[in-house]
Amino acid sequence: MPSSDNRGKLFIVGIGPGRTEQLTGRAKEAILESDIIIGNDFYLRLVEDLAEGKEVIRSSMGREVERARRCVELAREKKVCMVSGGDPGVYGMASIVLEVLEHDASVIDYEVVPGVTAATAAASLAGSPLSGDYVTLSLSDLLTPWEVICKRMDCAFQMGVPVAVYNPKSRGRPDNLAQALTIALKYRDDDVPVTVVKNAFRDEQEVRFFTLKSLFLDDSFVDMRSIVIIGGDESRIGTIGEKDMMITPRGYDRKYVY
Amino acid sequence: MPSSDNRGKLFIVGIGPGRTEQLTGRAKEAILESDIIIGNDFYLRLVEDLAEGKEVIRSSMGREVERARRCVELAREKKVCMVSGGDPGVYGMASIVLEVLEHDASVIDYEVVPGVTAATAAASLAGSPLSGDYVTLSLSDLLTPWEVICKRMDCAFQMGVPVAVYNPKSRGRPDNLAQALTIALKYRDDDVPVTVVKNAFRDEQEVRFFTLKSLFLDDSFVDMRSIVIIGGDESRIGTIGEKDMMITPRGYDRKYVY
Repeated sequence: MPSSDNRGKLFIVGIGPGRTEQLTGRAKEAILESDIIIGNDFYLRLVEDLAEGKEVIRSSMGREVERARRCVELAREKKVCMVSGGDPGVYGMASIVLEVLEHDASVIDYEVVPGVTAATAAASLAGSPLSGDYVTLSLSDLLTPWEVICKRMDCAFQMGVPVAVYNPKSRGRPDNLAQALTIALKYRDDDVPVTVVKNAFRDEQEVRFFTLKSLFLDDSFVDMRSIVIIGGDESRIGTIGEKDMMITPRGYDRKYVY
Repeated sequence: MPSSDNRGKLFIVGIGPGRTEQLTGRAKEAILESDIIIGNDFYLRLVEDLAEGKEVIRSSMGREVERARRCVELAREKKVCMVSGGDPGVYGMASIVLEVLEHDASVIDYEVVPGVTAATAAASLAGSPLSGDYVTLSLSDLLTPWEVICKRMDCAFQMGVPVAVYNPKSRGRPDNLAQALTIALKYRDDDVPVTVVKNAFRDEQEVRFFTLKSLFLDDSFVDMRSIVIIGGDESRIGTIGEKDMMITPRGYDRKYVY
């Protein structure tokens, strides 16, 4: 079924962290407006209610280039929505799709629809650990050499600000997190707070607080669906009611009494 | 009018970059569910359709501590929604509200509702400049001493990854951006691409591309409502159709042909 105006369009849509209530209105619209929905099966499941009656093309992790090529081909004539977890521009599908679009001779109308990225989604469940400056870093060395990641971490941990770690672990690289924490411990105190958020806004959501040292000693809780937020020099654990939370104050306490 | 179940609750809600279509479903729900909406007037205007019929408390920039105290007081008995631009946990209202909650004797139920943060919103309009690791940095020295910000920049620009700059300029500090670009030029080439996104997803939205050197020579386009994305070692300007975009490839090109 061609789209009503007979012209193709490609949406690259961030669906946010999980449940559809975390989608933006524009992301929802883009999915509903499309003829074809394409994406990693894990993320497609999260929005399947919205995709009802549409052609759905399921792809698997690691097949991003193939998936990007496919959506560009289809978008020459139809409205196609490439769904991406979190924000599509952060470790998501936007860059590879745009690279393929660059090389494509046909001129395809496209729109990148931003979403809530995993770091701030996780932060919202932990308290407010990323209130000020921070670094976003992935420990996946599939596309970036590990030496480059280590060099970046050396600078990042010297900044003294929180570091939000994506892809902290996977079957293929179980030791990357331990190596990252070793670098962090070179520059930061043992008792700097660390929050691990697993499955933010999805089933089996879990939030746990550690210190740099305690997580270094046992990181078995962390998996590939976790975000690890390593505190900066000013981060601390606080308590509201009976509930712990991690916070990085912005510095109002230096100017005001409250 | 007390809330139906007669218990207070405090929502700290990120409304995303601008128009209401960039709100998440949960953010919308939280506003609609609340008795009282409180926030900076600039952000309240963006969601005024949703606040119809509710008590609205308008506050101005720089009165964050007072606003946080007020919302906590009110939330003892009513459902109160503190709105914050972008994501409330990134240079937003979450941290100061949680600090006030910590000191408050009453136990108030709260929820931080994440939103699309300004950096990724701006990135989506520019192409995909923040596809991999990146640094989030603010040039506002109201709460963080300028020497600390400079030390952070020294490390950040050595990382070789893109830097998303919030609060690049204001009347009170017109020269901070020039100083930041001077530090960037110590570590990065003159022709590194830089994108400035002004009023993302709001009226008078504008996207312009520069190089590090050209923006250093004339940064008059940048104002306090701009996000400046300084490219990393691998960032470049590309073209799709007739439209320029900035991209930081993730490295698929090192493994695949496309």
